[in-house]
Amino acid sequence: MPELKTFDNPHPRRDYVIKHVATEFTSLCPKSGQPDFGAIEVEYVPDALCVELKSLKFYLQGYRNEGVFYEDAVNRILDDLVSALSPRWIKVTGKFTPRGGLHSIVTAEDNSAK
Amino acid sequence: MPELKTFDNPHPRRDYVIKHVATEFTSLCPKSGQPDFGAIEVEYVPDALCVELKSLKFYLQGYRNEGVFYEDAVNRILDDLVSALSPRWIKVTGKFTPRGGLHSIVTAEDNSAK
Amino acid sequence: MPELKTFDNPHPRRDYVIKHVATEFTSLCPKSGQPDFGAIEVEYVPDALCVELKSLKFYLQGYRNEGVFYEDAVNRILDDLVSALSPRWIKVTGKFTPRGGLHSIVTAEDNSAK
Amino acid sequence: MPELKTFDNPHPRRDYVIKHVATEFTSLCPKSGQPDFGAIEVEYVPDALCVELKSLKFYLQGYRNEGVFYEDAVNRILDDLVSALSPRWIKVTGKFTPRGGLHSIVTAEDNSAK
Amino acid sequence: MPELKTFDNPHPRRDYVIKHVATEFTSLCPKSGQPDFGAIEVEYVPDALCVELKSLKFYLQGYRNEGVFYEDAVNRILDDLVSALSPRWIKVTGKFTPRGGLHSIVTAEDNSAK
Amino acid sequence: MPELKTFDNPHPRRDYVIKHVATEFTSLCPKSGQPDFGAIEVEYVPDALCVELKSLKFYLQGYRNEGVFYEDAVNRILDDLVSALSPRWIKVTGKFTPRGGLHSIVTAEDNSAK
Amino acid sequence: MPELKTFDNPHPRRDYVIKHVATEFTSLCPKSGQPDFGAIEVEYVPDALCVELKSLKFYLQGYRNEGVFYEDAVNRILDDLVSALSPRWIKVTGKFTPRGGLHSIVTAEDNSAK
Amino acid sequence: MPELKTFDNPHPRRDYVIKHVATEFTSLCPKSGQPDFGAIEVEYVPDALCVELKSLKFYLQGYRNEGVFYEDAVNRILDDLVSALSPRWIKVTGKFTPRGGLHSIVTAEDNSAK
Amino acid sequence: MPELKTFDNPHPRRDYVIKHVATEFTSLCPKSGQPDFGAIEVEYVPDALCVELKSLKFYLQGYRNEGVFYEDAVNRILDDLVSALSPRWIKVTGKFTPRGGLHSIVTAEDNSAK
Amino acid sequence: MPELKTFDNPHPRRDYVIKHVATEFTSLCPKSGQPDFGAIEVEYVPDALCVELKSLKFYLQGYRNEGVFYEDAVNRILDDLVSALSPRWIKVTGKFTPRGGLHSIVTAEDNSAK
Repeated sequence: MPELKTFDNPHPRRDYVIKHVATEFTSLCPKSGQPDFGAIEVEYVPDALCVELKSLKFYLQGYRNEGVFYEDAVNRILDDLVSALSPRWIKVTGKFTPRGGLHSIVTAEDNSAK
Repeated sequence: MPELKTFDNPHPRRDYVIKHVATEFTSLCPKSGQPDFGAIEVEYVPDALCVELKSLKFYLQGYRNEGVFYEDAVNRILDDLVSALSPRWIKVTGKFTPRGGLHSIVTAEDNSAK
Repeated sequence: MPELKTFDNPHPRRDYVIKHVATEFTSLCPKSGQPDFGAIEVEYVPDALCVELKSLKFYLQGYRNEGVFYEDAVNRILDDLVSALSPRWIKVTGKFTPRGGLHSIVTAEDNSAK
Repeated sequence: MPELKTFDNPHPRRDYVIKHVATEFTSLCPKSGQPDFGAIEVEYVPDALCVELKSLKFYLQGYRNEGVFYEDAVNRILDDLVSALSPRWIKVTGKFTPRGGLHSIVTAEDNSAK
Repeated sequence: MPELKTFDNPHPRRDYVIKHVATEFTSLCPKSGQPDFGAIEVEYVPDALCVELKSLKFYLQGYRNEGVFYEDAVNRILDDLVSALSPRWIKVTGKFTPRGGLHSIVTAEDNSAK
Repeated sequence: MPELKTFDNPHPRRDYVIKHVATEFTSLCPKSGQPDFGAIEVEYVPDALCVELKSLKFYLQGYRNEGVFYEDAVNRILDDLVSALSPRWIKVTGKFTPRGGLHSIVTAEDNSAK
Repeated sequence: MPELKTFDNPHPRRDYVIKHVATEFTSLCPKSGQPDFGAIEVEYVPDALCVELKSLKFYLQGYRNEGVFYEDAVNRILDDLVSALSPRWIKVTGKFTPRGGLHSIVTAEDNSAK
Repeated sequence: MPELKTFDNPHPRRDYVIKHVATEFTSLCPKSGQPDFGAIEVEYVPDALCVELKSLKFYLQGYRNEGVFYEDAVNRILDDLVSALSPRWIKVTGKFTPRGGLHSIVTAEDNSAK
Repeated sequence: MPELKTFDNPHPRRDYVIKHVATEFTSLCPKSGQPDFGAIEVEYVPDALCVELKSLKFYLQGYRNEGVFYEDAVNRILDDLVSALSPRWIKVTGKFTPRGGLHSIVTAEDNSAK
Repeated sequence: MPELKTFDNPHPRRDYVIKHVATEFTSLCPKSGQPDFGAIEVEYVPDALCVELKSLKFYLQGYRNEGVFYEDAVNRILDDLVSALSPRWIKVTGKFTPRGGLHSIVTAEDNSAK
């Protein structure tokens, strides 16, 4: 995956919340090879570092031709953001478009760095 | 009912939430034999196992020509998912379309496996 | 009012929630005799009994030519459902359409049978 | 039915359009006796007369305990308005709420008085 | 298919439009056997006959366990309504839910009986 | 009524359309003295003159404590704009909020100055 | 201001919630004299008294030609309702339309009579 | 591009309209290499042939890693469908998601085969 | 204003429609100096040339600190696009946000180059 | 930045909430110099002082030609409002429009003056 770049949190003494919503996420189904589509929401309280917006876009584009299950994609994105940012709290949500009349939403959060 | 298949939870050490929304549920009214329609939402925190999406679709299609009351359908789907997954927590919601100007929503949850 | 019929709760060992929304409620204003319109929402946790859907429809139709204030209608429907069902918990909401630029929502709940 | 009252068109030399939308129409099904609900839209180009708003409300309330089919209700309302107003053009639309998963819209127009 | 019943057009001297929208149409895909879902809209100008609403509901339910392509379903429903009603004009539209990110709308009309 | 001020049409050689929508129109019912509310839409093709926006706002505010019927208000606003602007074409629409479950839309146009 | 009239709470032994939403509130800006528009929401748990709907409408109309700031209007309406009703709990919200790209919402509550 | 497969039009004697909407179209910008997203709508009157739905899905997926401008994509899809179907009439619309605050819609139609 | 760049129409033998919607247009009011906001829609049938998307964005940003009336902005943008593209047909629409309860829409079109 | 003006809280003995939503915020990206757009929401419980609405509008307009990151803008606006008002509690939210398929929401709050 493309590297997640960071910049220094300009207001580290305050707990505040940053939410980025990427509405154009796409990956491949590892079983059928067919494309999956969805939105990825990243919501976090920064500690020392914030994620740089352009690098987040490139990082998520890295899944475009990757075979990955919904449950796995959300947890991997969460793990990578925790590694890059060590945020005070973070939640990642994936909202995937319908397949056969079923749509799925996966949500995971982490505050291990707190 | 068709069998609910499972796969190993890829991130068992983290509590996270998976929600599947099936917008094309249909069954039969046990009294009138007339078709009922609605959406079934399944939301759970997996323990060792996740439900396989395609098998969930086939399982829900198993109600297509089955006579079942709203209250019963939701509780039976919940029971079957608890048996198959032993999830840390699970909630099943049925949102049924209007009949005679009345629409109904039934919600049941379970954390007996916790 | 037409009688509220019941059937045995098929899953009495579990606390679960049933919600019925009747979007075609109408009664008469006791002052002006003019028709009032609104939606009645009934949400409850059944104990031994569930309300039969068709009888709920007929019961609510019983208000069609009845003069009743908003505040009174909601509380009377609640009282009648408590008598018929002795539910573990119940809430009744009336959402009435605008009159002279004002619309009203009345909500009452009861857990006396718990 | 209550009488449709009129007032003199204040601008008879201009062709202009008046539309009244009554969102709280209710009548009875002549077969089952069950209440029907819907919206009635009246759109017309007045000639010498306009319909008085309050009398239109009372006229439509006159269907409250009347057994009438959708197709008939719309045509009867049209006929009564043509008799009362002799408008240059008029259209009546009934949009009825769902019954058994089916909702209906009936539209009739008339310019016989032109 | 269940028979389409009719009743005499109560206002045959006027051209007017009746539209019925059935939001709970379901059939089977003739290739995969999987259920399809959609809405069927029937819009027509009656001549001597109108379609009876309940029989239209039962007729459309007749497709529930029938294998039929979208293009074929809409044209067959149109043909059957033309046979039963000989309407002055009629249009049938099928709006089907998404399959693999694609949803389809098929529209056919007929005025051969005019 | 406050005067409608104008400015020279900056592009008189081209037919183009200007639409102003005033969502905060209020007047009084001449019968009951009760306030009426609605939106006034003015759409026109300017000839030599355009209406100045602020003066249009003040002009419409002039109806605030005026008793006027819907049908009359729309036609009077149209007449005053025709007098002030001599536009190539103009349409005025009033969309009034519900009274007793009925809302009204009145539309008048004029191209007498063409 | 017109007097707020009351009637006896028909169900004083139960805590329940009444909400009235007036979507056609208008007053004057005390600085510019320009009209302001908005919605006023009143939500309360009655004790011995309920507010009579028509008198609430007339009371709110009393602000029509009154110069008052948003913050002040909401608090004054709250004070007047507390005086008239001595409710167990009450909340008043004013949602005002945009001025210069800014819209405002003011919320105040009171349970001093509890 | 993957081949567009066809099947025989089951009702060739009637002019009727088929519309397929693919909401998950993605390609690459030929300048920046960045992914573009949008919906492709195909609407046509079949002559002898209809397009097979699954092959249309695979055909559109063929653009996933292709560099193509909006204007070109829509015209190429139109050309390929005309070649495969010789339809009586066809229209292709591309609705693309915003880039830098600008979103674009491109529409092209063809009836050369008529 | 920044220059409008063009590229060769890739399909000049077909009449087709390109629409660009810029939702983040802002300029200054020439009277008050206050910022105005709105959306600019450009819809055209290209002849030999198409407008390059990025240059259109920069061109529209050129109005950011420019004093210009609504009516003038739309006509100037139209004139500049006609000069740059000589399109077969073009329409420019400006939809401006509310000022004092009034919002405005200005539409101008041109086919002089046809 | 233009000065934030204040006026005396007219009801200081009550804790109540004032929310201002500015939907026309724009600034410049410090990296690219390109304009950013969004909405700024300010929600607070006043102590001795309220912010004057017009001065809040001018203050926010002060960012129009300022280069500032999303995270920084929200925190600076919060700091300036805390300095000017010493509110009992305050929250500032910035909701920014999409850039490259990503939109961002930043929320910060403060109760240091409590």
